Amino acid sequence: MPHDHVHLTLPAWIADEIGTETVYPDDLSKMALAVRLSSRNVRETSGGPFGAALFTDTGRLLGVGVNRVVSQNCSLAHAEMLAFATAQQAMNRFRLNQNGERIVLATSSQPCAMCYGASFWAGIDAVLIGARADDVQSLAGFDEGPLPADWIGEWQKRGINVRRDILREDACAVLKAYGESGLVY
Amino acid sequence: MPHDHVHLTLPAWIADEIGTETVYPDDLSKMALAVRLSSRNVRETSGGPFGAALFTDTGRLLGVGVNRVVSQNCSLAHAEMLAFATAQQAMNRFRLNQNGERIVLATSSQPCAMCYGASFWAGIDAVLIGARADDVQSLAGFDEGPLPADWIGEWQKRGINVRRDILREDACAVLKAYGESGLVY
Repeated sequence: MPHDHVHLTLPAWIADEIGTETVYPDDLSKMALAVRLSSRNVRETSGGPFGAALFTDTGRLLGVGVNRVVSQNCSLAHAEMLAFATAQQAMNRFRLNQNGERIVLATSSQPCAMCYGASFWAGIDAVLIGARADDVQSLAGFDEGPLPADWIGEWQKRGINVRRDILREDACAVLKAYGESGLVY
Repeated sequence: MPHDHVHLTLPAWIADEIGTETVYPDDLSKMALAVRLSSRNVRETSGGPFGAALFTDTGRLLGVGVNRVVSQNCSLAHAEMLAFATAQQAMNRFRLNQNGERIVLATSSQPCAMCYGASFWAGIDAVLIGARADDVQSLAGFDEGPLPADWIGEWQKRGINVRRDILREDACAVLKAYGESGLVY
Protein backbone atom coordinates (compact mmCIF):
# COMPACT_ATOMS: atom_id res chain seq x y z
CA MET A 1 0.00 0.00 0.00
CA PRO A 2 1.47 3.40 -1.02
CA HIS A 3 1.65 6.31 1.43
CA ASP A 4 -1.73 7.90 2.05
CA HIS A 5 -0.65 11.33 3.21
CA VAL A 6 1.80 14.17 2.67
CA HIS A 7 3.24 16.33 5.39
CA LEU A 8 5.29 19.45 4.66
CA THR A 9 6.74 21.78 7.25
CA LEU A 10 8.34 25.21 7.20
CA PRO A 11 11.62 25.67 9.09
CA ALA A 12 11.53 26.37 12.82
CA TRP A 13 13.14 29.82 12.33
CA ILE A 14 10.13 31.21 10.38
CA ALA A 15 8.43 32.79 13.40
CA ASP A 16 11.68 34.43 14.47
CA GLU A 17 12.26 35.89 10.98
CA ILE A 18 8.75 37.28 10.69
CA GLY A 19 9.04 38.83 14.12
CA THR A 20 6.38 41.20 15.35
CA GLU A 21 5.72 43.08 12.11
CA THR A 22 2.04 42.75 11.33
CA VAL A 23 1.31 45.06 8.40
CA TYR A 24 3.12 45.28 5.07
CA PRO A 25 1.49 48.31 3.45
CA ASP A 26 3.25 48.55 0.08
CA ASP A 27 4.92 46.45 -2.62
CA LEU A 28 8.40 47.09 -1.24
CA SER A 29 7.65 45.94 2.28
CA LYS A 30 5.86 42.84 0.97
CA MET A 31 8.82 41.93 -1.24
CA ALA A 32 11.32 42.70 1.50
CA LEU A 33 9.77 39.92 3.59
CA ALA A 34 9.90 37.43 0.67
CA VAL A 35 13.59 38.23 0.06
CA ARG A 36 14.45 38.04 3.77
CA LEU A 37 12.85 34.58 3.91
CA SER A 38 14.88 33.44 0.87
CA SER A 39 18.07 34.76 2.43
CA ARG A 40 17.49 33.16 5.82
CA ASN A 41 16.63 29.85 4.11
CA VAL A 42 20.08 29.83 2.47
CA ARG A 43 21.86 30.95 5.64
CA GLU A 44 20.16 28.20 7.66
CA THR A 45 20.66 25.64 4.83
CA SER A 46 16.99 24.73 5.25
CA GLY A 47 16.25 24.90 1.51
CA GLY A 48 16.87 26.60 -1.81
CA PRO A 49 17.18 30.38 -2.28
CA PHE A 50 13.48 31.17 -2.61
CA GLY A 51 10.94 32.87 -0.37
CA ALA A 52 7.30 33.86 -0.83
CA ALA A 53 4.58 35.54 1.17
CA LEU A 54 0.85 36.17 0.78
CA PHE A 55 -0.98 39.27 1.92
CA THR A 56 -4.35 40.90 1.79
CA ASP A 57 -4.39 44.02 -0.32
CA THR A 58 -4.24 46.07 2.88
CA GLY A 59 -1.02 44.31 3.87
CA ARG A 60 -2.07 41.71 6.42
CA LEU A 61 0.23 38.67 6.25
CA LEU A 62 -1.67 35.45 5.42
CA GLY A 63 1.07 32.91 4.83
CA VAL A 64 4.70 32.39 3.94
CA GLY A 65 6.78 29.76 2.20
CA VAL A 66 10.38 28.86 1.49
CA ASN A 67 11.87 26.15 -0.69
CA ARG A 68 11.90 22.80 1.17
CA VAL A 69 12.36 20.34 -1.72
CA VAL A 70 15.46 18.53 -0.46
CA SER A 71 14.74 18.57 3.27
CA GLN A 72 11.17 17.35 2.83
CA ASN A 73 11.83 14.94 -0.04
CA CYS A 74 9.17 16.60 -2.14
CA SER A 75 9.46 18.35 -5.51
CA LEU A 76 6.23 20.24 -4.78
CA ALA A 77 7.78 22.08 -1.83
CA HIS A 78 8.59 25.35 -3.59
CA ALA A 79 8.23 28.63 -1.71
CA GLU A 80 5.07 29.76 -3.51
CA MET A 81 3.40 26.35 -3.13
CA LEU A 82 3.98 26.29 0.62
CA ALA A 83 2.69 29.84 0.92
CA PHE A 84 -0.49 28.94 -1.00
CA ALA A 85 -1.13 25.73 0.93
CA THR A 86 -0.38 27.00 4.43
CA ALA A 87 -2.51 30.11 3.89
CA GLN A 88 -5.39 28.09 2.43
CA GLN A 89 -5.42 25.58 5.26
CA ALA A 90 -5.08 28.37 7.84
CA MET A 91 -8.11 30.13 6.33
CA ASN A 92 -10.09 26.95 5.55
CA ARG A 93 -10.59 27.89 1.93
CA PHE A 94 -9.12 26.46 -1.25
CA ARG A 95 -9.34 29.82 -3.05
CA LEU A 96 -7.81 32.59 -0.99
CA ASN A 97 -9.87 35.37 -2.57
CA GLN A 98 -13.20 33.56 -2.56
CA ASN A 99 -14.73 36.10 -0.18
CA GLY A 100 -13.86 38.96 -2.54
CA GLU A 101 -10.78 40.18 -0.67
CA ARG A 102 -7.85 41.01 -2.98
CA ILE A 103 -4.82 38.74 -2.36
CA VAL A 104 -1.21 39.56 -3.27
CA LEU A 105 1.66 37.08 -3.70
CA ALA A 106 5.20 38.39 -3.27
CA THR A 107 7.87 35.97 -4.46
CA SER A 108 11.63 36.50 -4.40
CA SER A 109 12.00 34.97 -7.90
CA GLN A 110 9.75 34.52 -10.90
CA PRO A 111 7.58 31.44 -10.36
CA CYS A 112 8.64 28.23 -12.14
CA ALA A 113 6.26 26.39 -14.46
CA MET A 114 4.63 24.52 -11.53
CA CYS A 115 4.15 27.56 -9.30
CA TYR A 116 2.96 29.59 -12.29
CA GLY A 117 0.28 26.98 -12.99
CA ALA A 118 -0.63 26.77 -9.29
CA SER A 119 -1.14 30.54 -9.16
CA PHE A 120 -4.27 30.23 -11.31
CA TRP A 121 -6.05 28.02 -8.77
CA ALA A 122 -4.80 29.58 -5.52
CA GLY A 123 -7.09 32.60 -5.62
CA ILE A 124 -4.70 35.52 -5.98
CA ASP A 125 -5.13 38.90 -7.67
CA ALA A 126 -1.59 40.21 -7.97
CA VAL A 127 1.95 38.87 -8.18
CA LEU A 128 5.04 40.82 -7.14
CA ILE A 129 8.29 39.34 -8.50
CA GLY A 130 11.90 40.02 -7.41
CA ALA A 131 14.48 38.23 -9.57
CA ARG A 132 13.74 37.18 -13.15
CA ALA A 133 13.81 33.63 -14.52
CA ASP A 134 17.11 34.40 -16.27
CA ASP A 135 18.63 35.39 -12.91
CA VAL A 136 17.47 32.11 -11.35
CA GLN A 137 19.11 30.14 -14.14
CA SER A 138 22.34 32.12 -14.43
CA LEU A 139 23.02 32.78 -10.73
CA ALA A 140 21.64 29.66 -9.01
CA GLY A 141 21.50 27.11 -11.85
CA PHE A 142 17.80 26.21 -11.57
CA ASP A 143 15.66 25.37 -14.60
CA GLU A 144 12.36 27.28 -14.44
CA GLY A 145 10.55 25.00 -16.91
CA PRO A 146 8.40 25.87 -19.93
CA LEU A 147 5.81 28.68 -19.74
CA PRO A 148 3.25 29.90 -22.26
CA ALA A 149 4.87 32.45 -24.62
CA ASP A 150 2.67 35.23 -23.24
CA TRP A 151 2.78 34.13 -19.59
CA ILE A 152 2.18 37.64 -18.29
CA GLY A 153 -0.79 38.10 -20.63
CA GLU A 154 -2.30 34.79 -19.46
CA TRP A 155 -2.22 36.08 -15.88
CA GLN A 156 -3.76 39.39 -16.90
CA LYS A 157 -6.50 37.63 -18.88
CA ARG A 158 -7.58 35.97 -15.62
CA GLY A 159 -7.43 39.16 -13.58
CA ILE A 160 -3.99 38.63 -12.04
CA ASN A 161 -1.78 41.72 -12.21
CA VAL A 162 2.00 41.48 -12.25
CA ARG A 163 4.81 43.77 -11.18
CA ARG A 164 8.42 42.67 -11.76
CA ASP A 165 11.95 43.67 -10.69
CA ILE A 166 10.99 44.69 -7.16
CA LEU A 167 14.17 44.51 -5.04
CA ARG A 168 15.62 42.50 -7.90
CA GLU A 169 19.22 43.17 -6.83
CA ASP A 170 18.58 41.94 -3.31
CA ALA A 171 16.85 38.83 -4.59
CA CYS A 172 19.75 38.21 -7.02
CA ALA A 173 22.30 38.52 -4.22
CA VAL A 174 20.62 35.58 -2.47
CA LEU A 175 20.57 33.50 -5.66
CA LYS A 176 24.26 34.29 -6.16
CA ALA A 177 25.21 33.32 -2.60
CA TYR A 178 23.45 30.00 -3.05
CA GLY A 179 25.02 29.38 -6.47
CA GLU A 180 28.49 30.17 -5.19
CA SER A 181 28.10 27.88 -2.18
CA GLY A 182 28.22 24.90 -4.54
CA LEU A 183 25.85 23.09 -2.18
CA VAL A 184 22.41 21.63 -2.91
CA TYR A 185 19.96 21.87 -0.04
CA MET B 1 2.04 33.79 12.98
CA PRO B 2 0.88 31.99 9.77
CA HIS B 3 0.54 28.20 9.63
CA ASP B 4 3.90 26.44 9.47
CA HIS B 5 2.83 23.14 7.94
CA VAL B 6 0.61 21.49 5.36
CA HIS B 7 -1.08 18.14 5.77
CA LEU B 8 -2.86 16.39 2.93
CA THR B 9 -4.50 12.99 3.11
CA LEU B 10 -5.92 10.54 0.62
CA PRO B 11 -9.39 9.11 1.31
CA ALA B 12 -9.72 6.12 3.63
CA TRP B 13 -11.08 3.93 0.79
CA ILE B 14 -7.82 4.03 -1.20
CA ALA B 15 -6.42 0.76 0.21
CA ASP B 16 -9.69 -1.01 -0.50
CA GLU B 17 -9.78 0.23 -4.09
CA ILE B 18 -6.19 -0.79 -4.80
CA GLY B 19 -6.84 -4.22 -3.31
CA THR B 20 -4.23 -6.95 -3.64
CA GLU B 21 -3.08 -6.23 -7.20
CA THR B 22 0.66 -5.63 -7.10
CA VAL B 23 1.83 -5.46 -10.71
CA TYR B 24 0.47 -3.35 -13.55
CA PRO B 25 2.42 -4.63 -16.55
CA ASP B 26 1.10 -2.50 -19.42
CA ASP B 27 -0.32 0.94 -20.24
CA LEU B 28 -3.91 -0.29 -20.08
CA SER B 29 -3.65 -1.79 -16.61
CA LYS B 30 -1.86 1.32 -15.31
CA MET B 31 -4.56 3.60 -16.72
CA ALA B 32 -7.35 1.32 -15.51
CA LEU B 33 -6.20 1.97 -11.93
CA ALA B 34 -6.08 5.76 -12.47
CA VAL B 35 -9.62 5.74 -13.89
CA ARG B 36 -10.93 3.48 -11.12
CA LEU B 37 -9.54 5.90 -8.55
CA SER B 38 -11.22 8.86 -10.31
CA SER B 39 -14.52 6.98 -10.41
CA ARG B 40 -14.43 5.91 -6.77
CA ASN B 41 -13.53 9.49 -5.75
CA VAL B 42 -16.75 10.75 -7.36
CA ARG B 43 -18.85 7.89 -5.97
CA GLU B 44 -17.56 8.54 -2.45
CA THR B 45 -17.82 12.35 -2.92
CA SER B 46 -14.27 12.59 -1.57
CA GLY B 47 -13.07 14.89 -4.37
CA GLY B 48 -13.20 15.84 -8.03
CA PRO B 49 -13.26 13.33 -10.91
CA PHE B 50 -9.52 12.78 -11.20
CA GLY B 51 -7.19 9.90 -10.36
CA ALA B 52 -3.49 9.29 -10.92
CA ALA B 53 -0.95 6.58 -10.19
CA LEU B 54 2.82 6.21 -10.44
CA PHE B 55 4.64 3.05 -11.40
CA THR B 56 8.08 1.75 -12.16
CA ASP B 57 8.53 0.80 -15.77
CA THR B 58 8.07 -2.84 -14.78
CA GLY B 59 4.68 -2.02 -13.29
CA ARG B 60 5.29 -1.80 -9.55
CA LEU B 61 2.88 0.70 -7.94
CA LEU B 62 4.71 3.57 -6.18
CA GLY B 63 1.95 5.99 -5.30
CA VAL B 64 -1.57 7.14 -6.07
CA GLY B 65 -3.54 10.35 -5.89
CA VAL B 66 -7.06 11.66 -6.27
CA ASN B 67 -8.39 15.20 -6.28
CA ARG B 68 -8.82 16.49 -2.70
CA VAL B 69 -9.03 20.26 -3.26
CA VAL B 70 -12.34 20.93 -1.53
CA SER B 71 -12.09 18.41 1.30
CA GLN B 72 -8.55 19.45 2.24
CA ASN B 73 -8.97 23.19 1.60
CA CYS B 74 -5.99 23.19 -0.72
CA SER B 75 -5.76 24.13 -4.41
CA LEU B 76 -2.57 22.06 -4.72
CA ALA B 77 -4.38 18.81 -3.93
CA HIS B 78 -4.82 17.57 -7.51
CA ALA B 79 -4.53 13.85 -8.22
CA GLU B 80 -1.12 14.03 -9.92
CA MET B 81 0.32 16.26 -7.18
CA LEU B 82 -0.73 13.87 -4.42
CA ALA B 83 0.67 10.93 -6.38
CA PHE B 84 4.03 12.73 -6.81
CA ALA B 85 4.28 13.84 -3.20
CA THR B 86 3.15 10.61 -1.53
CA ALA B 87 5.48 8.52 -3.71
CA GLN B 88 8.42 10.86 -3.12
CA GLN B 89 7.98 10.90 0.63
CA ALA B 90 7.46 7.11 0.68
CA MET B 91 10.74 6.64 -1.22
CA ASN B 92 12.64 9.45 0.54
CA ARG B 93 13.64 11.10 -2.71
CA PHE B 94 12.49 14.35 -4.30
CA ARG B 95 13.10 13.02 -7.82
CA LEU B 96 11.46 9.67 -8.31
CA ASN B 97 13.83 8.52 -11.06
CA GLN B 98 17.03 9.72 -9.45
CA ASN B 99 18.38 6.18 -9.17
CA GLY B 100 17.95 5.63 -12.91
CA GLU B 101 14.71 3.63 -12.71
CA ARG B 102 12.14 4.67 -15.33
CA ILE B 103 8.95 6.08 -13.76
CA VAL B 104 5.52 6.24 -15.41
CA LEU B 105 2.61 8.52 -14.45
CA ALA B 106 -0.89 7.42 -15.43
CA THR B 107 -3.50 10.14 -15.06
CA SER B 108 -7.20 9.87 -15.82
CA SER B 109 -7.22 13.35 -17.45
CA GLN B 110 -4.65 15.57 -19.10
CA PRO B 111 -2.70 17.43 -16.40
CA CYS B 112 -3.69 21.05 -15.75
CA ALA B 113 -1.11 23.86 -15.96
CA MET B 114 0.05 23.24 -12.35
CA CYS B 115 0.39 19.47 -12.63
CA TYR B 116 2.04 19.86 -16.04
CA GLY B 117 4.66 22.15 -14.52
CA ALA B 118 5.10 19.83 -11.53
CA SER B 119 5.75 16.89 -13.85
CA PHE B 120 9.12 18.39 -14.85
CA TRP B 121 10.45 18.29 -11.28
CA ALA B 122 8.89 15.03 -10.06
CA GLY B 123 11.31 12.73 -11.83
CA ILE B 124 9.13 10.89 -14.34
CA ASP B 125 9.93 9.46 -17.78
CA ALA B 126 6.52 8.85 -19.28
CA VAL B 127 2.96 10.15 -18.98
CA LEU B 128 -0.14 8.16 -19.88
CA ILE B 129 -3.25 10.30 -20.32
CA GLY B 130 -6.93 9.24 -20.40
CA ALA B 131 -9.31 12.12 -21.15
CA ARG B 132 -8.20 15.25 -23.02
CA ALA B 133 -8.26 18.83 -21.71
CA ASP B 134 -11.29 19.55 -23.91
CA ASP B 135 -13.14 16.66 -22.26
CA VAL B 136 -12.35 18.03 -18.80
CA GLN B 137 -13.71 21.43 -19.77
CA SER B 138 -16.79 20.29 -21.68
CA LEU B 139 -17.90 17.39 -19.45
CA ALA B 140 -16.89 18.54 -15.96
CA GLY B 141 -16.51 22.31 -16.36
CA PHE B 142 -12.93 22.62 -15.11
CA ASP B 143 -10.47 25.16 -16.53
CA GLU B 144 -7.13 23.46 -17.28
CA GLY B 145 -5.12 26.71 -17.38
CA PRO B 146 -2.59 27.96 -19.94
CA LEU B 147 0.07 25.60 -21.32
CA PRO B 148 3.00 26.22 -23.68
CA ALA B 149 1.79 25.96 -27.30
CA ASP B 150 3.94 22.84 -27.85
CA TRP B 151 3.34 21.26 -24.44
CA ILE B 152 3.93 17.75 -25.70
CA GLY B 153 7.17 18.81 -27.38
CA GLU B 154 8.37 20.45 -24.14
CA TRP B 155 7.91 17.13 -22.35
CA GLN B 156 9.73 15.25 -25.10
CA LYS B 157 12.61 17.74 -25.06
CA ARG B 158 13.19 16.79 -21.43
CA GLY B 159 12.94 13.06 -22.03
CA ILE B 160 9.31 12.61 -20.96
CA ASN B 161 7.31 10.51 -23.40
CA VAL B 162 3.54 10.88 -23.73
CA ARG B 163 0.73 8.58 -24.79
CA ARG B 164 -2.81 9.97 -24.95
CA ASP B 165 -6.40 8.69 -25.26
CA ILE B 166 -5.84 5.54 -23.18
CA LEU B 167 -9.26 4.42 -21.89
CA ARG B 168 -10.45 7.90 -22.87
CA GLU B 169 -14.12 6.84 -22.97
CA ASP B 170 -13.98 5.41 -19.45
CA ALA B 171 -12.26 8.53 -18.15
CA CYS B 172 -14.85 10.72 -19.89
CA ALA B 173 -17.72 8.74 -18.35
CA VAL B 174 -16.41 9.72 -14.89
CA LEU B 175 -16.07 13.38 -15.88
CA LYS B 176 -19.62 13.28 -17.23
CA ALA B 177 -21.05 11.72 -14.06
CA TYR B 178 -19.40 14.42 -11.98
CA GLY B 179 -20.56 17.20 -14.31
CA GLU B 180 -24.14 15.94 -14.30
CA SER B 181 -24.22 15.67 -10.51
CA GLY B 182 -24.19 19.47 -10.31
CA LEU B 183 -22.22 19.15 -7.07
CA VAL B 184 -18.80 20.57 -6.24
CA TYR B 185 -16.69 18.35 -3.96
